[in-house]
Amino acid sequence: MSLLSRFSQAMELLPSATTRLVIAYSGGLDSRVLLQLSKEYVVKHPRFTLQAIHVHHGLQESADAWLEHCQQQAELLAIPFVAEKLEIALKSRQSLEAVAREQRYAALAKYIGAGSCLLTGHHADDQFETFMLALKRGSGLQGLAAMPQSRVFSQGILLRPLLQSTRAELEAFAKQVKLSWIDDPSNLSLDFDRNFLRHQILPELTQRWPQWLTTSQRSVQLLQEAVSLHDELAELDYRQVARQQGLSLRELQGLSLVRQKNLIRYWFAQQAWAYPSHAQLQQILQQSQAKSDAKVAMAFPEGELRRYKEVLYLVDRRALQCSCQEVVWLWQTQNCLHLANGSRLSWQKGGNLLPPSPTQQVRVKFRDQLEQKDFAAFGRLGRRSIKKLLQESELEPWHRARIPFVFYDDTLVAIGDYYVQREFHCAEQQGLSLVWSPIG
Amino acid sequence: MSLLSRFSQAMELLPSATTRLVIAYSGGLDSRVLLQLSKEYVVKHPRFTLQAIHVHHGLQESADAWLEHCQQQAELLAIPFVAEKLEIALKSRQSLEAVAREQRYAALAKYIGAGSCLLTGHHADDQFETFMLALKRGSGLQGLAAMPQSRVFSQGILLRPLLQSTRAELEAFAKQVKLSWIDDPSNLSLDFDRNFLRHQILPELTQRWPQWLTTSQRSVQLLQEAVSLHDELAELDYRQVARQQGLSLRELQGLSLVRQKNLIRYWFAQQAWAYPSHAQLQQILQQSQAKSDAKVAMAFPEGELRRYKEVLYLVDRRALQCSCQEVVWLWQTQNCLHLANGSRLSWQKGGNLLPPSPTQQVRVKFRDQLEQKDFAAFGRLGRRSIKKLLQESELEPWHRARIPFVFYDDTLVAIGDYYVQREFHCAEQQGLSLVWSPIG
Repeated sequence: MSLLSRFSQAMELLPSATTRLVIAYSGGLDSRVLLQLSKEYVVKHPRFTLQAIHVHHGLQESADAWLEHCQQQAELLAIPFVAEKLEIALKSRQSLEAVAREQRYAALAKYIGAGSCLLTGHHADDQFETFMLALKRGSGLQGLAAMPQSRVFSQGILLRPLLQSTRAELEAFAKQVKLSWIDDPSNLSLDFDRNFLRHQILPELTQRWPQWLTTSQRSVQLLQEAVSLHDELAELDYRQVARQQGLSLRELQGLSLVRQKNLIRYWFAQQAWAYPSHAQLQQILQQSQAKSDAKVAMAFPEGELRRYKEVLYLVDRRALQCSCQEVVWLWQTQNCLHLANGSRLSWQKGGNLLPPSPTQQVRVKFRDQLEQKDFAAFGRLGRRSIKKLLQESELEPWHRARIPFVFYDDTLVAIGDYYVQREFHCAEQQGLSLVWSPIG
Repeated sequence: MSLLSRFSQAMELLPSATTRLVIAYSGGLDSRVLLQLSKEYVVKHPRFTLQAIHVHHGLQESADAWLEHCQQQAELLAIPFVAEKLEIALKSRQSLEAVAREQRYAALAKYIGAGSCLLTGHHADDQFETFMLALKRGSGLQGLAAMPQSRVFSQGILLRPLLQSTRAELEAFAKQVKLSWIDDPSNLSLDFDRNFLRHQILPELTQRWPQWLTTSQRSVQLLQEAVSLHDELAELDYRQVARQQGLSLRELQGLSLVRQKNLIRYWFAQQAWAYPSHAQLQQILQQSQAKSDAKVAMAFPEGELRRYKEVLYLVDRRALQCSCQEVVWLWQTQNCLHLANGSRLSWQKGGNLLPPSPTQQVRVKFRDQLEQKDFAAFGRLGRRSIKKLLQESELEPWHRARIPFVFYDDTLVAIGDYYVQREFHCAEQQGLSLVWSPIG
């Protein structure tokens, strides 16, 4: 099968709403071939528009010359061309390669709105390298499944129409139609793990087994199918185990260990958290068997895993932010108060909190700023301890230090949207209604 | 962790009913270390008995010398020793390596009764090679999951207690305690794919990434977990989709494609058929969408996949064997008649077929030997076409050419255990009852 027909086959994966093709064009062999095939394809399929984006890393001395080369090539094919310039600032312990890749995708994402598709030049050799690097990290199924042929990206889609073709096939094609491209000198250095695989391991494998890239690619595709099977099972299990945005421990522990892990991984992805590592997964399973809720707290970049009343929660980082100063609320002009702990307090008409008199100042404090220990809540007998009231509120413990206490001058009149002071309660929804959103 | 403690950890996987350890002892480094560690372990855990089996392939000139060496080593450790001699005859298109392995395991299986465990010397390097060879074949998850640490084997279990240890660790141990072993010259030749990986690829990977065997081993273990997850989902789906020892097409097609494939793979394993290949799976899915049942027939070593009334069946090879000659049944002395087509016809008392008179000969014919086209079946009006009667019997089509037709002299009196001739029907179970088993 020719490169173009394999390319065309891949393009059939695109949803019919896709009309705009955006080529990630670095100037190297792969993306130059991609540019050429895309042009040939669009000539035959005029429903698509075409654009090339060159990301200028500024990492190589010759980057400016590359940009110029790319611009000329795009002009030659009459493809609209844009360059995006990155300024890469490395923090400690970050790899240049990883940061450059992340920023490159961020720059490209801006161009991928609804109906757009980003085309990248990844080929079978890249796929093999990605697979081996996952093996080197000891990744599981998801990591070994490497790069899918297509996936959601930004507002549109990302497609790799050369993924089934080998680098050798791309080079043969480029030479045959006399394309001009730039060989990135960093590709030749064995300093990078990827280049070690590319220049040392892969040639030996393909020399002994000429079909190596085809067969190993098929294995990777079968692993991708396996991933989708895992997701299906996780979805089934999630329906059974989900409770109030968390996971019921009792239901979770009814599943086999591998199924628990699979579900937890899925749950993280659902909340848009990065997958937990193998070791973290083990720890979550251990912690979920702890006797007391208080012991369960594990930190992740996005927040914390917590346990409360036999339910596991992924608590957003913002919901753990407690620190807050006392504030004066100019409630009449400021309907919605954004608090420094990331939560939000607002009021509307039709509630049962007596409004303040014109001379009273409305102030908002937090639990560690309180002097009083008890509160005469409407609907309860006598004065009750605030600690007890908060426990009874079913408010998750991590929110209890964050909930706003509302004062009229020096009198506490309401605790978040949970309790109103008995003497400030007005019947028949003639007063104010407070609404507190733990995450603004 | 020392080799012995890793070995001991693996032994904890054994069920408590296991009391007999059988060592597959070739004489090479791996199995010599295994022999040593097993001995040390059993001294501390006297509930186990120990035995070493040496399989003598006769493939190498020096095989007799090896046997002698192994016997001496076992005597040194006071371990009972047995040698099993193989005579390997290759059929065309078989690989010597594969046949030798198969016969070796068959020879070892004889020693593994209930309560026995076969110990093999596979280590992390072997695991990596197995993994890469699966990749070379383009295998899916099951193949890439390579060798499990333990599995059911013969009547007992197979355990690989060195699987987490590298070949280098085994060699260091062997040198330290001054073990004596044989280096198999075939291990050094690059003729075999496995040796290419062992001597060329793996050293380069471990030189660059010293942790390579540890991390890639972890990946393989995670794939093994993924396999067990697949099996769980297949079990759930099987309960939903199974119909009369087959799969309901309607239910099957309600599942996603990857889930259909997973279920079919599981179904083959359930019937003790070898996994279908990737290409065969694709073909099964295609065929199951055919409009007519007749079109669906796919051959496998164990039999055929067939479709009948919207159900897929795996039909055993024996159930497809039709050819049969007419036979005389000496029914009074021969209660059970084994037919040449692999089926079995027997009689017992308490049925409603009038017994033959003493002068009548009982003969059994088959469909393609019949002259008559119709039959006066008890319970049906008039004479009906035999073809129609068979259709109405709900007997699967592949059995219809195999069912025995029973004659008294020249009169057809019964069709298998489905129909009795009206005039030979006797009431109140005073006669004979025929029983036909399609697979003897």
